[in-house]
Amino acid sequence: MLPRGRPRALGAALLLLLLLVVGFFLFGRDPEYGLGTTATLDGDPYGSRNRSTSSLQLLLPPKCEVMLHVAIVCAGYNSSREIITLMKSVLFYRKNPLHLHLITDAVARNILETLFRTWMVPAVVVSFYDAEELKPLVSWIPNKHYSGLYGLMKLVLPSVLPLSLARVIVLDTDVTFSSDIMELWALFGHFSGVILLWLDRLQQIGWEQMWKLTAKRELLTLTATSLADQDIFNAVIKEHPELVHPLPCVWNVQLSDHTLAERCYLEAADLKVIHWNSPKKLRVKNKHAEFFRDLHLTFLGFDGKLLCRELFGCPNQFPPGVEQLQQALAQLDEEEPCFEFRQQQLTVHRVHITFLSHQPPPPRPHDVTLVAQLSMDRLQMLEALCRHWRGPMSLALYLTDAEAQQFLRFVETSPVLSARKDVAYHVVYRDGPLYPVNQLRNVALAQALTPYVFLSDIDFLPAYSLYDYLRASIEQLALGRRQRKAALVVPAFETLHYRFSFPNSKAELLTLLDAGSLHTFRYHEWPQGHASTDYTRWREAQAPYRVQWSADYEPYVVVPRDCPRYDPRFVGFGWNKVAHIIELDAQEYEFLVLPEAFSIHLPHAPSLDISRFRSSPTYRDCLQALKEEFHQDLSRRYGSAALKYLTALQQSRSRA
Amino acid sequence: MLPRGRPRALGAALLLLLLLVVGFFLFGRDPEYGLGTTATLDGDPYGSRNRSTSSLQLLLPPKCEVMLHVAIVCAGYNSSREIITLMKSVLFYRKNPLHLHLITDAVARNILETLFRTWMVPAVVVSFYDAEELKPLVSWIPNKHYSGLYGLMKLVLPSVLPLSLARVIVLDTDVTFSSDIMELWALFGHFSGVILLWLDRLQQIGWEQMWKLTAKRELLTLTATSLADQDIFNAVIKEHPELVHPLPCVWNVQLSDHTLAERCYLEAADLKVIHWNSPKKLRVKNKHAEFFRDLHLTFLGFDGKLLCRELFGCPNQFPPGVEQLQQALAQLDEEEPCFEFRQQQLTVHRVHITFLSHQPPPPRPHDVTLVAQLSMDRLQMLEALCRHWRGPMSLALYLTDAEAQQFLRFVETSPVLSARKDVAYHVVYRDGPLYPVNQLRNVALAQALTPYVFLSDIDFLPAYSLYDYLRASIEQLALGRRQRKAALVVPAFETLHYRFSFPNSKAELLTLLDAGSLHTFRYHEWPQGHASTDYTRWREAQAPYRVQWSADYEPYVVVPRDCPRYDPRFVGFGWNKVAHIIELDAQEYEFLVLPEAFSIHLPHAPSLDISRFRSSPTYRDCLQALKEEFHQDLSRRYGSAALKYLTALQQSRSRA
Repeated sequence: MLPRGRPRALGAALLLLLLLVVGFFLFGRDPEYGLGTTATLDGDPYGSRNRSTSSLQLLLPPKCEVMLHVAIVCAGYNSSREIITLMKSVLFYRKNPLHLHLITDAVARNILETLFRTWMVPAVVVSFYDAEELKPLVSWIPNKHYSGLYGLMKLVLPSVLPLSLARVIVLDTDVTFSSDIMELWALFGHFSGVILLWLDRLQQIGWEQMWKLTAKRELLTLTATSLADQDIFNAVIKEHPELVHPLPCVWNVQLSDHTLAERCYLEAADLKVIHWNSPKKLRVKNKHAEFFRDLHLTFLGFDGKLLCRELFGCPNQFPPGVEQLQQALAQLDEEEPCFEFRQQQLTVHRVHITFLSHQPPPPRPHDVTLVAQLSMDRLQMLEALCRHWRGPMSLALYLTDAEAQQFLRFVETSPVLSARKDVAYHVVYRDGPLYPVNQLRNVALAQALTPYVFLSDIDFLPAYSLYDYLRASIEQLALGRRQRKAALVVPAFETLHYRFSFPNSKAELLTLLDAGSLHTFRYHEWPQGHASTDYTRWREAQAPYRVQWSADYEPYVVVPRDCPRYDPRFVGFGWNKVAHIIELDAQEYEFLVLPEAFSIHLPHAPSLDISRFRSSPTYRDCLQALKEEFHQDLSRRYGSAALKYLTALQQSRSRA
Repeated sequence: MLPRGRPRALGAALLLLLLLVVGFFLFGRDPEYGLGTTATLDGDPYGSRNRSTSSLQLLLPPKCEVMLHVAIVCAGYNSSREIITLMKSVLFYRKNPLHLHLITDAVARNILETLFRTWMVPAVVVSFYDAEELKPLVSWIPNKHYSGLYGLMKLVLPSVLPLSLARVIVLDTDVTFSSDIMELWALFGHFSGVILLWLDRLQQIGWEQMWKLTAKRELLTLTATSLADQDIFNAVIKEHPELVHPLPCVWNVQLSDHTLAERCYLEAADLKVIHWNSPKKLRVKNKHAEFFRDLHLTFLGFDGKLLCRELFGCPNQFPPGVEQLQQALAQLDEEEPCFEFRQQQLTVHRVHITFLSHQPPPPRPHDVTLVAQLSMDRLQMLEALCRHWRGPMSLALYLTDAEAQQFLRFVETSPVLSARKDVAYHVVYRDGPLYPVNQLRNVALAQALTPYVFLSDIDFLPAYSLYDYLRASIEQLALGRRQRKAALVVPAFETLHYRFSFPNSKAELLTLLDAGSLHTFRYHEWPQGHASTDYTRWREAQAPYRVQWSADYEPYVVVPRDCPRYDPRFVGFGWNKVAHIIELDAQEYEFLVLPEAFSIHLPHAPSLDISRFRSSPTYRDCLQALKEEFHQDLSRRYGSAALKYLTALQQSRSRA
C-alpha cells in the first residue's frame, strides 16, 4: 500500500486508473450534476463518441477521429505555468485531436483562456469548469491548507465533466510526456472486459458513496487530522483492490521514488511519462536525474509556436476565425516590399497574462497603474523602476519561451522584484522580425486594474513622488467625478550620462537642466515630439495648464483605463505613440500638463530590434505607408475633424 | 526514373539503399583501400559486429548492444552547422549507441572535432576520414563546381570506411529526423535475403567498376557536361533496377517534391525523416510547410546540452576523462557557499569554432588579431568594432542554441558584418549561472591565427589607426626577431556620454580629455586598474616606455599568440584580467606603453550577468577565495618570485 504524506507519489498512474473507472461510472450518474460550462473553440465534440465504440478499435485508432480527453485541475499562477509545459510535451508527440477539460479557479481560467485563444493550436478543444462549484463537495474533508482542496477535486470530477464523456485521462500538472499520449489512451483497450464489468459494479455500489464512506471511516478510525486526495485514493484502493489494474511502470516514472523507478527504467528502453517537476532539487546526486531534468527543461523552454502544426490529413482543425487569419496571411505577397510589416500586423501572439504571482490592487477611485513594455535587453531596468514607482504596474514582456524562464529566475533571485506583488508581468511570445510595440502596449493596458493608467516607456524613470502626486492630481482635478476627458501630461527629460544622480524635486531637476546634465527629451533629434508640452511655461507653472495638440506630439500621459487602444498596425519602431495621441485628441481629450510631474529617460545602447531597421530605406517607406493608411482610417471615423492631422502630415512630408 | 538537375530530390532514400548494397560489398573489396584514420572517443567499436549477425535479430535489437553506424560527408562552415541540427534530431529520438563516420575537409574536421569533444554525448563514437584522400577517386568526373566533389564522394565511401563495417546509413546533412533512427536501421532486416543475394552479385560485378562504367557511358552518350552524384546514382539504378528496393515514403518526405510527399503523408500518421532544410523558401504557400519548418526549427534552436543524457541501463558510455569530470562534479557540496563557482569552473562548454564562414588571414610576421568575448546583449557593438578595427578578429560568443540562430541572422542582415570574412566567431554554448569569462577568452585566443593578439574587451572601440599602428610598432620594436617577451600596453579611456564623437587622433583625444568629455578608464572607481600605465607620461610620450607591474594592474595588451592563457577559475566578474597580467609579469613580460595607441570604453547598461551578482556578499567572498587559491598556485609555480603578488594582495585586503 502507498504511504500517506506523499500525495503525488503515484498520482498520475492511479488517477488514470481511477478515472478509467470513473469515466464509465458517468453513464450511471444523475444528469443534474452537469455543472460544466464549455468554452470551446469548437462545437459539440462528444457526439461521435459513445459507449458502443469498441475498445479494440481504440487500440488501432482511426486517424483524425479519436478525440482524446484529458482532464486537469489547475489553480493559481504557478500551476498555470506548469500546465503549459505539460501541454507542450503532450502536443510534441501527439497525433490525435485533443479535448482538454480544465477545472480551474478564476486566476487560472483568466490566464489559460487567453493563452489557448492566442496559441491557436489546431485540433485542440479546451473546456473550462469552475472549481468553485466543486468546493462544497470536498470542503467537508479536513485538509492541511486551502490549495489541498484542488487535489481533492479529482475525487468529484464525475460531477463536473459532461455526461457524454465516456473516458478521460486525468493528469497532475507536474507531469511531462516523453511519448504519444495516444499510447496511454490505448491502454483503455486492455481493460475493455474489466471496465465493462466494473461499470456494472460501480452502478451498483456508487463511486461517490464509496469514497465518502471510506474517507469518513479513515477520519474516525485513524488518527488523521487531515486528508489529502491521495490518502483517500489509497484507502479506497485498500478496501477495493479489484478496482485497480496497475499501469506499466513506464507510465509514471518518478525520481522521488527511486528504487521503484530504477527497477523500471533498467528494464525498459522507453519511458512514457515523467512525473517530476523540480529539476533543481536533485541536481547531480542521482545518476538518472539528468534524463528527467533534460526532458523537463526541453519542454520548459520549447517554442510553443512550433507546436501549432496541423495533424496530417485531418480536416477542419481550426475554428473559422483562425482559418480566415491564415487565409489572409497566405494571400500576402512575399515580394511586396512591406511584406514583413503586413505579416507582423496579422500575427496573433501567444499571450501569458500574469506570468508570475500577482496581488491585484484594492479598488481605489484615483489609483493609477504604470503601463509599459520591454524585451529581454531591458530587464535590468526593472529594479530601478520598482524603486521609483511604488504603485501597481502592468508590464508586457516580449520574450521567447526560453527567455521567459530566464525572466522567471531573474525575478526569483531579485529581492526587490520578488517582494513586489503589485507588478503584473504579461509575457507575449516572440514571433516575427518586427517588434509589435503597440500590440504589447495594448496587452499591458488591457490588464491594468486601476481606474487610471500612466502610459510610460521602460527606459524612463519617474520622479520618486510621481505615483502619489498623480493620485492627488487626479483627485484634485476631479477627473473621475465629472467624467472629464483629460490626458495628464508628464513632462519628459533625458540624461546622456551613464552615471547620473536622480533629482529629488522639480527644483533639483531645473538645476541639472541649467547645468546641462539634463535635457528635455529628444530636444536635439525630435523637438516636435514634446514641443507642445511647453517646457518654458512648465518651469514657472504652479498649476496644471492646458496645451493644444500639434503635429508629431507624443507626450507620456495619464488617462482613464478605458482610453483608446494603441493602433496595432504600427509594428517595429516609429510613430506608434504619435498615432495614439492623435486618437486621444480626435476623441477630444484635453491635454493638461502637470507642473510637478517629470520622468527621465536613461541612456542605453540601441536595441537589436531598432538597429536592424533604422538604417533601411524600405523601412522608412513602409512606415510612411502605414501613416497614410492610418490617416485614411482617421478621416473615415472622424470626418472633417480629422483634416488637421492630414494637413500636418502633408506639411511634414513636404518639409522632408 | 529521376530527373537530372535535382541532385537531392531523393538523396537520402537512394543513398540508404545504395549503401545497404555498398555496405555488404565491403566484404569483397580490397583491403588496401582502408584510408580512414579513426579519431574516436572509444576503442574498437566494430569487433562485435560481423556478417553472421542475424538480420532478424536487428528487428528486435538487444538494448545497448546494437551500435548504429551513420556516415556523412561534410565540408565547409555551412555544412558543419547543418550536421549539428541533423545530429540533434537523431539524438533526441535515439535509444541506441551511435558511431558517426564523418568524411570531412580540414575546415569541417577542425570544427566538428572540437564540437563533439566538448559536447560529450554519451554512447556516441565519432570517427573522422579525410575527404582529401577521396578526391582523386572522383575528381575525373566533370562537375559544376568544386563543392560538387563532396557529393560524388558518396560513390566511393566503401574505399574509406573500415573493412569491418558491415552496414551503414548514409545521410545528407540537410535531413531532420522525427523518429528513432533505429527504425531506419531495422529496415536492413527486411532486406536480409535480398542483400545476401546482392552481395554475391556485387562480388561478381564489382560496384566500383559498375558506377564508373555507367558514369563514363553517360558522359559519352548524353550531352552531359557535368555529373552530380545523383545523376550517377540515377543512371546506375536505371541500368540495374534490381539493386533498388524502395524505402517506405515516410523515410524521405520532401516538400520540394510536392505531389509525392502529399500522397505519402496523407496516408501515414508518422513521418520519419524530413529532407528539407530551407524553412525560409516556402513560407506560407504550402499547406504543410509548417510541419516541415517547425520540426527543423525545433532542432535548430534545441539546447544541445539536453541531449547528453545517458542511455538507460547501458554501461560505460563515456570515455574515462568525462567520467572523472562527472565524478568531480558529483563530489561537489551543494550546500557550500561557493558551490556555483566550483560547478561553473568544472563545466566543459560545448564549443562551435568558426560558426560562420571565415577566411583565415594570410601569414604575415607582424599581424595582430583582436581577441574579445561577448554575449547576446553586446551584439550591437560588432558593427562599430568592425569599422574601428580593419584587421582580423577572433571573438567568442556565449550563447544558447537559439541565440546562435539569432546571431546568424543578425550577421546575415548586416552588410557591414557579412562583408567581413576575417572575423572568426566562436560560439560557446551557455551552461550554468556564472559567465565563464576567462574560458571564453581562451577559446577566442586559441583560435587567433596571427603571430600577435590584441587582448581587448567588447565594450571598447580602438582608435581607427590602431591596427596599422600596432603592426608598425611590432615591426619597429622587433618583437619577433629578438624573441623579446613584451606586452604592448594600449591605454584605455572611457566616455560616460551616450552620444559621442570618436577622436581621430591622440591630439583630439587629449582635447576631449581636457574638456571632461573623456576620462581615463575607471578613474573614479578603480584607478589602480590602470595606474601603472601612467597617463601623465603618456600625454607627452613620443616613444614606447616601460612601466612596472603594480597591484591590480589590468591594462589591455598586445602579446604574442603563445602568451599564457587566462586562468579559467575566474568565472563571473572580477579579477579575471588582473590574474592574467600577474601571470605575464611572473613570466617576465615587459610592459611597454605605446604612445599613439588608445582605445575607448563606451557606456552601456550593466549586463544581466553582472547585475545578478554584483550586490551579493557571498559573491565577493567567493571571489576572495578564488584570489587566494590563485596566489597559492602562483607561489607553487614561481616560488619566491611570486611573493610580491601575495604581499600586494594582503595589503589590498588590509586596506579594504
